[in-house]
Amino acid sequence: MTKASPRRKTDPLPPWQPRSKEGKPVDLSKFDPGAKPFSSGDKGRDKEKVEALALEIDVLQDMLYADRRFKVLVVLQGMDAAGKDGTIRGVFSRVSPLGTDTIGWKAPTPAERAHDFLWRIHQSVPGAGQLMIFNRSHYEDVLVPVVQGTLSAQQTQQRFRQINDFERLLAETGTVILKFMLHLSPDEQRQRLQERIDDPGKAWKFLPGDLEVRRHWSDYMAAYGALLGATSTELAPWTVVPADSKTHRNLMVATVVRDKLASLGLRYPPPDPAIKGVKVV
Amino acid sequence: MTKASPRRKTDPLPPWQPRSKEGKPVDLSKFDPGAKPFSSGDKGRDKEKVEALALEIDVLQDMLYADRRFKVLVVLQGMDAAGKDGTIRGVFSRVSPLGTDTIGWKAPTPAERAHDFLWRIHQSVPGAGQLMIFNRSHYEDVLVPVVQGTLSAQQTQQRFRQINDFERLLAETGTVILKFMLHLSPDEQRQRLQERIDDPGKAWKFLPGDLEVRRHWSDYMAAYGALLGATSTELAPWTVVPADSKTHRNLMVATVVRDKLASLGLRYPPPDPAIKGVKVV
Repeated sequence: MTKASPRRKTDPLPPWQPRSKEGKPVDLSKFDPGAKPFSSGDKGRDKEKVEALALEIDVLQDMLYADRRFKVLVVLQGMDAAGKDGTIRGVFSRVSPLGTDTIGWKAPTPAERAHDFLWRIHQSVPGAGQLMIFNRSHYEDVLVPVVQGTLSAQQTQQRFRQINDFERLLAETGTVILKFMLHLSPDEQRQRLQERIDDPGKAWKFLPGDLEVRRHWSDYMAAYGALLGATSTELAPWTVVPADSKTHRNLMVATVVRDKLASLGLRYPPPDPAIKGVKVV
Repeated sequence: MTKASPRRKTDPLPPWQPRSKEGKPVDLSKFDPGAKPFSSGDKGRDKEKVEALALEIDVLQDMLYADRRFKVLVVLQGMDAAGKDGTIRGVFSRVSPLGTDTIGWKAPTPAERAHDFLWRIHQSVPGAGQLMIFNRSHYEDVLVPVVQGTLSAQQTQQRFRQINDFERLLAETGTVILKFMLHLSPDEQRQRLQERIDDPGKAWKFLPGDLEVRRHWSDYMAAYGALLGATSTELAPWTVVPADSKTHRNLMVATVVRDKLASLGLRYPPPDPAIKGVKVV
């Protein structure tokens, strides 16, 4: 496990935001799921920081909603038990439901299957001033069928290009896109799945299919590496988030989201000049 | 007016299907709205032919619906009174409403305006086996704002690229796209608008804004020329349809639609082997 190190100005994010070089796959074995690059070294202080960031994000989201110049799309991907639900709870639970929404993408319905794979996604992208969180996403369509062998290499490359074209349209029309790959170790997954099985309050979350997916771990890591290499663009970057520590995972996602929102120069619209100096009687 | 000439194998469509050369605008003044390249020279015979084609299209659409390998999107664009409604009635009225749908695109709602201009369009593209007719379309978004001067040249080029990316996604996922520009002369429009004003049964169709648009005729022709040059691609070609003659307009659109559907090799799916030889008792 990498030693925890506090974040400094000289400790930049880029190593965790791989940028594709001509679509070359990213080697995920070089990313340590146990790393804590954003940690203060003290878990209690990290937790307080997450809480403070969640409150900051709430303020920024309120301005985003009023401002209406931007749309924000947050994509969460990761293996089972990587902590997608936990991240949403930890990072976005302080945000008002007004102007915020979460979608948990499941297997497509027959009507969705009758259309291209981005059809249902496009319907749910955020509108002006909205913050939308995708729990899983269109990236499932370049993971599951790739590992199952039902999508050829050529078809996969085509989907990568279609995704980049689609995300470029969104970005060019005002959407800020932040994509997070919650990077778990197989060991940590084993422990979390075992907990789910053993805990009556968590057993409902467990699906027998989860074990089947786990068996193809290295195939999934290869598919993730390929999609990270092909679709981590300037307009829609991926951040690989070490996810073995829940606190650090939330700290890192919250920091990236807060920093991005803070960089937008959000502002409340000026009041209508007509109401200036008006006396309410 | 160009002399009517019967269609022969050696009298090809391509002049009426301009293909963009590096996005160079098409000069619409070279297309005669009074031409009748598909006419037999006899109006009565042309009308019978339209009727026969409409029945053929009905049969083909039924196979399209059963086959489910393709989706068909027909886009109709043109100035006011160019005959978009009349084309739908004349070419597609024999088609079963099962698996066929028409959308008349109006000015976007506030919710639609809060998203990118292709968001509402994507929601209404045809699914497997469907035939969708767009009466106006996303191309209004590179016409009206261009003429009104609210979209810069650079933004217009960006939208052309976004449209091409979007239509490529649709084409690559099984959508056959046919786009028709109903090419009317200003003289013929004047007569038709006058008829609408004078006829109590048609006056409801007339909007004062129609005259305002008419005043910018040459600007609209320039905007149409630009979009034809930029977006008439191999996967989603435009056909310029001379539209001063209603019969010939229907004949030409029906021929292109029938020919395209007939080229797809549509077939009814084979029956389930399980029902082979089964005796219904």
